[in-house]
Amino acid sequence: MANSFGQLFRITTWGESHGGGVGVVVDGCPPRLELTEADIQPDLDRRRPGQSKIVTPRKESDAVQILSGTFEGKTLGTPISMWVRNEDMRPEAYSEMASKFRPSHADYTYIAKYGIRNWQGGGRTSARETIGRVAAGAIAKKILRLRFGVEVLAYVKQVQKITAEVDPEKVKASQIESNIVRCPESQTAEKMIRLIEKMRREGDSVGGIVEGVARGVPPGWGEPVFDRLEADLAKAMLSLPASKGFDIGSGFGGITLTGREHNDLFRMKGGKVRTVTNRSGGIQGGISNGETIYFRVAFKPVATVMHEQETVDVHLKNTTLKGRGRHDPCVLPRAVPMVEAMTALVLVDHALRQKAQCE
Amino acid sequence: MANSFGQLFRITTWGESHGGGVGVVVDGCPPRLELTEADIQPDLDRRRPGQSKIVTPRKESDAVQILSGTFEGKTLGTPISMWVRNEDMRPEAYSEMASKFRPSHADYTYIAKYGIRNWQGGGRTSARETIGRVAAGAIAKKILRLRFGVEVLAYVKQVQKITAEVDPEKVKASQIESNIVRCPESQTAEKMIRLIEKMRREGDSVGGIVEGVARGVPPGWGEPVFDRLEADLAKAMLSLPASKGFDIGSGFGGITLTGREHNDLFRMKGGKVRTVTNRSGGIQGGISNGETIYFRVAFKPVATVMHEQETVDVHLKNTTLKGRGRHDPCVLPRAVPMVEAMTALVLVDHALRQKAQCE
Amino acid sequence: MANSFGQLFRITTWGESHGGGVGVVVDGCPPRLELTEADIQPDLDRRRPGQSKIVTPRKESDAVQILSGTFEGKTLGTPISMWVRNEDMRPEAYSEMASKFRPSHADYTYIAKYGIRNWQGGGRTSARETIGRVAAGAIAKKILRLRFGVEVLAYVKQVQKITAEVDPEKVKASQIESNIVRCPESQTAEKMIRLIEKMRREGDSVGGIVEGVARGVPPGWGEPVFDRLEADLAKAMLSLPASKGFDIGSGFGGITLTGREHNDLFRMKGGKVRTVTNRSGGIQGGISNGETIYFRVAFKPVATVMHEQETVDVHLKNTTLKGRGRHDPCVLPRAVPMVEAMTALVLVDHALRQKAQCE
Amino acid sequence: MANSFGQLFRITTWGESHGGGVGVVVDGCPPRLELTEADIQPDLDRRRPGQSKIVTPRKESDAVQILSGTFEGKTLGTPISMWVRNEDMRPEAYSEMASKFRPSHADYTYIAKYGIRNWQGGGRTSARETIGRVAAGAIAKKILRLRFGVEVLAYVKQVQKITAEVDPEKVKASQIESNIVRCPESQTAEKMIRLIEKMRREGDSVGGIVEGVARGVPPGWGEPVFDRLEADLAKAMLSLPASKGFDIGSGFGGITLTGREHNDLFRMKGGKVRTVTNRSGGIQGGISNGETIYFRVAFKPVATVMHEQETVDVHLKNTTLKGRGRHDPCVLPRAVPMVEAMTALVLVDHALRQKAQCE
Repeated sequence: MANSFGQLFRITTWGESHGGGVGVVVDGCPPRLELTEADIQPDLDRRRPGQSKIVTPRKESDAVQILSGTFEGKTLGTPISMWVRNEDMRPEAYSEMASKFRPSHADYTYIAKYGIRNWQGGGRTSARETIGRVAAGAIAKKILRLRFGVEVLAYVKQVQKITAEVDPEKVKASQIESNIVRCPESQTAEKMIRLIEKMRREGDSVGGIVEGVARGVPPGWGEPVFDRLEADLAKAMLSLPASKGFDIGSGFGGITLTGREHNDLFRMKGGKVRTVTNRSGGIQGGISNGETIYFRVAFKPVATVMHEQETVDVHLKNTTLKGRGRHDPCVLPRAVPMVEAMTALVLVDHALRQKAQCE
Repeated sequence: MANSFGQLFRITTWGESHGGGVGVVVDGCPPRLELTEADIQPDLDRRRPGQSKIVTPRKESDAVQILSGTFEGKTLGTPISMWVRNEDMRPEAYSEMASKFRPSHADYTYIAKYGIRNWQGGGRTSARETIGRVAAGAIAKKILRLRFGVEVLAYVKQVQKITAEVDPEKVKASQIESNIVRCPESQTAEKMIRLIEKMRREGDSVGGIVEGVARGVPPGWGEPVFDRLEADLAKAMLSLPASKGFDIGSGFGGITLTGREHNDLFRMKGGKVRTVTNRSGGIQGGISNGETIYFRVAFKPVATVMHEQETVDVHLKNTTLKGRGRHDPCVLPRAVPMVEAMTALVLVDHALRQKAQCE
Repeated sequence: MANSFGQLFRITTWGESHGGGVGVVVDGCPPRLELTEADIQPDLDRRRPGQSKIVTPRKESDAVQILSGTFEGKTLGTPISMWVRNEDMRPEAYSEMASKFRPSHADYTYIAKYGIRNWQGGGRTSARETIGRVAAGAIAKKILRLRFGVEVLAYVKQVQKITAEVDPEKVKASQIESNIVRCPESQTAEKMIRLIEKMRREGDSVGGIVEGVARGVPPGWGEPVFDRLEADLAKAMLSLPASKGFDIGSGFGGITLTGREHNDLFRMKGGKVRTVTNRSGGIQGGISNGETIYFRVAFKPVATVMHEQETVDVHLKNTTLKGRGRHDPCVLPRAVPMVEAMTALVLVDHALRQKAQCE
Repeated sequence: MANSFGQLFRITTWGESHGGGVGVVVDGCPPRLELTEADIQPDLDRRRPGQSKIVTPRKESDAVQILSGTFEGKTLGTPISMWVRNEDMRPEAYSEMASKFRPSHADYTYIAKYGIRNWQGGGRTSARETIGRVAAGAIAKKILRLRFGVEVLAYVKQVQKITAEVDPEKVKASQIESNIVRCPESQTAEKMIRLIEKMRREGDSVGGIVEGVARGVPPGWGEPVFDRLEADLAKAMLSLPASKGFDIGSGFGGITLTGREHNDLFRMKGGKVRTVTNRSGGIQGGISNGETIYFRVAFKPVATVMHEQETVDVHLKNTTLKGRGRHDPCVLPRAVPMVEAMTALVLVDHALRQKAQCE
């Protein structure tokens, strides 16, 4: 159960960063949806290492294969099994990891939990696990687009202290994809890229903020108590590797306002109930109100740095460890499709739940 | 399912702010735990309206009754049903709400979702729903304390722009409970109280930050993928009324550091693997590492203000609405026991999951 | 989780045979359904002890109260909490049970599992727990009837060796309710009643078969693998106290036929795909095919008999025990509404699942 | 969710009879269990078509591959993904099936449900889907054997009217595997084989009963209400293709006894609480009592027969269809490992649940 997400559109991911491969089973996909690998691969390519000079150079083609659940290019309503083979396995690159716990990685906590770990990479906590999510998310995005008219986007909003001003109502996918850092503001993107390149040269890393957006969500999705739309989004985002925070609408910033200032007043507009401002972030009482949903996810700087750092080994002796091999100075450009995928998975699940109970 | 939380220690809450009452069923509680209403009531009293001059004056005694699951003062292992009667129902106070949507409340989204709503109060989105969670959380806290040696605490860290410096490693429950705003730093607490009283006089409201802490969690709780401990905490917190954000450890602030600066180095200390710093917030790769878990939850200012504000009525006409009756200038003091409860519910669930799979 | 049933229309029951009461929370009920206690009480009355001379004389009015989830006589889409107070508690009647395990009851297994038990009655295994199911089932039956045109019925098919011939396609509720044993064939019913009265006089008990029927289920409900309609029905029925077996359509009897003889041939009839025979029992490959669903449930004779029987006490010494007080010679008449309730709960759950995924 | 089974030891199967392959993801397996393909393959070979002259001759080697979740021959505690490639695809053999609904198959109900189907075989309802269950069940059986001392067995008890007398307490695996029909009584086995061969020659088929046994289950597994051990077993068994009934202990036969006759009296024996008889089938009140668990599963005769039968085509016209190609006269020998697998999956799930809540 720990490796499943969603109630009606449920995904189960499997696979380690090193081993036979990684994959996902999607259960609950509506039947008769046109679907081939061509719908999935583009998002996997956006997630892939080695896609640009500012991400980890690990060489994997990450070619997805659909093993079940479709027939003559359409979904059957049965489980869709997808997988990607592992290619670039270099166990020798990890030899030191066999005996030492990498700082701020999960090596130690895995041993504490399971009493065993595959030291050849990050195991299930690795970014490689997200391949399954991104593949499933591509299906969810397609369903949202075709059947509900909902568009899901994400982009890099901040890298360390460099922040972009982006309007969630208007930003376009083409703007996001126009540069390798996936920040839709081109001048700020340049600065971000320069900072990340500097980090690469210095063997260091930086974190930042990815903003997620969903436009066109009709009023009524989400539940009023535990499964609030923002609660499920928060869980989805905090389940991504390296994420440390989530806020929605006015978020942490909204604290400085008083209630009078903060409230989103209702007005009729185009025959619809609309809000004048959107500090609620498109969700009120856990349920979508028809306005644009937007939220931010904080990602810490990548833990692997090319410098010697103090740590402990598996024999519980103090020692030091220096990151070697492939270095990922910033996870943000690759986190963008992950945020989109998890957003789409949450939304399509609630869309189906709404159909079941209220329509 | 939308009204249940947890997998092995599962709670199901029911009840509206107005109606017969509110309650909770706790499924999965270990047998042979000493338990009476006296274990539950203190936390409900901390959550209760009317407990001090700075919270809503609604008069409810909120006396809890255990209806099942115990025998001669001990749990049976069967479902524990608890409930609190509704007392202070004044439907007449809500007459205007029958026809108008309150800004930044869930009135409109309820109609959009269900096509019907109980306009006599906030329905399930109301803070009153949290009675069930706080009651269940009191059981979870007792299990954590007695069976696992874990202490769960929360306190008000910030009210609007007034921030307290609190050490999550050392703060004591008695300090938190020493003042009505539940900020353990007494001088800052005074300022916070004065600000909230000012808001009350002005018919306005303020939000802020509650910090949650869990001390003594052993290494190994949590799961590496979707059910990361921080992901489940994030969902738990964003499921609380009026919450808008969550971050853990270094959180949003950690973004300004580089990887070298941010990493928590391991060192042996007292025969244990410890980290020198705790920017991870006690969790690495979704799994507890034995350090103190601490996180922050942002709460927006309460939406009900005693001023006329623009809105829309149920006939989709523009109109205005002015908050009347009981006014809650700040939800934070009452949010403290809610944050503790949800934290405890997440932790005890993972404690049981760890027993099931890995021990 | 062990006390919940259903995925989209999920019920959670609570309460022991002895304690504050018993109840149920229904989560996932569609909004805007007309619902009051008057929809629930009739089925509870059919389940109630003391309703006739052939069932246990325990005196409970079993008056149900809806505590949440409705407003002005309609469902809100929020959890419906219902409860029935316990009235007829006579702890002294159970004093011997405090120290001895009743044969073929759950006294011993409760201690083995939980290390504690409420010896004042049958705990959660008691027939009293089924109050919550029957109450929830009444709502499910109403939804099926009003929104899907589906009728759910059950009746006593066999008492010990006395068997009735009943046509599942034609049997009417009024025939079933025309006598106290709930067998729609009046002459056979007479014989059954005489046998049960004889058992009562002899302080003994008999079991038999209840047949469940669902008419009007459209083709397409159910899932092809684990959640086959017949699999969920089997679980539902085997979860009833005293049930020992389930079979559907041709069932155990179909074994004597060959494939050629057993197959249900398809023919067009009235513009619909129909089967000439219905050995499949209305379900093929786990999915309803539009024919009448019918199945049988075997109930063992009630374990409490008014005779001294060998057993063991809590100190693990051999001893004897004689049933005292109220004696239930046959559970079947009261099992009828339980079978109906569980059938309806399974069907409404699959109806909602079908809406979510395939419509 | 419809393709998952179990709560703590949860399996998710995927794959159609025709397509890339079939597989399973096992979530919740304890870490540090020795596990390789050699633990899985023998049960798959027992399930495999073409294993003897009395089962379907479909030629598939069904070689399983473990793709994740193990490292150096031990489980990691992470999801175990296993798959088997499809080899023997002959779409041309199914051309007539593209346009006609096979009687007593799921062709029509699939279309009714999903509006689409893969007509190249039985889709998810096919016996081929059970590969994933049998593979997962092999792991469950190993856990039960090594960690809990529990032995799970099944055997053919009856073929049409030919019944074997078998003592569930004493039957050995070697007896079951000593002949191709998997009936431990050799003389009866001969008769069964002759009957099945006759059916093969006649292009017809027969059904029968498989009995499942679990020995060494400690008292205390199972739950008292919905998740009774027998309820979960019933669901497990009725989820197998072609199964039509389930009964446990005295089952349908126990109806003829009175309560006095039927009760299992307790007696101390070897320092343990034991029952003199075992009509309860090892389960009382949903919870294991330490006695041998035994139950029966009815399987209907295989629907595909080599004779022309009336049916309907996809254009809703009456027509006829004659089974062609590979003919399976009796599913029972291959159902034996399926029954064992599902039994083991239910038991290991409850073993883990018991650890979580009560230990």
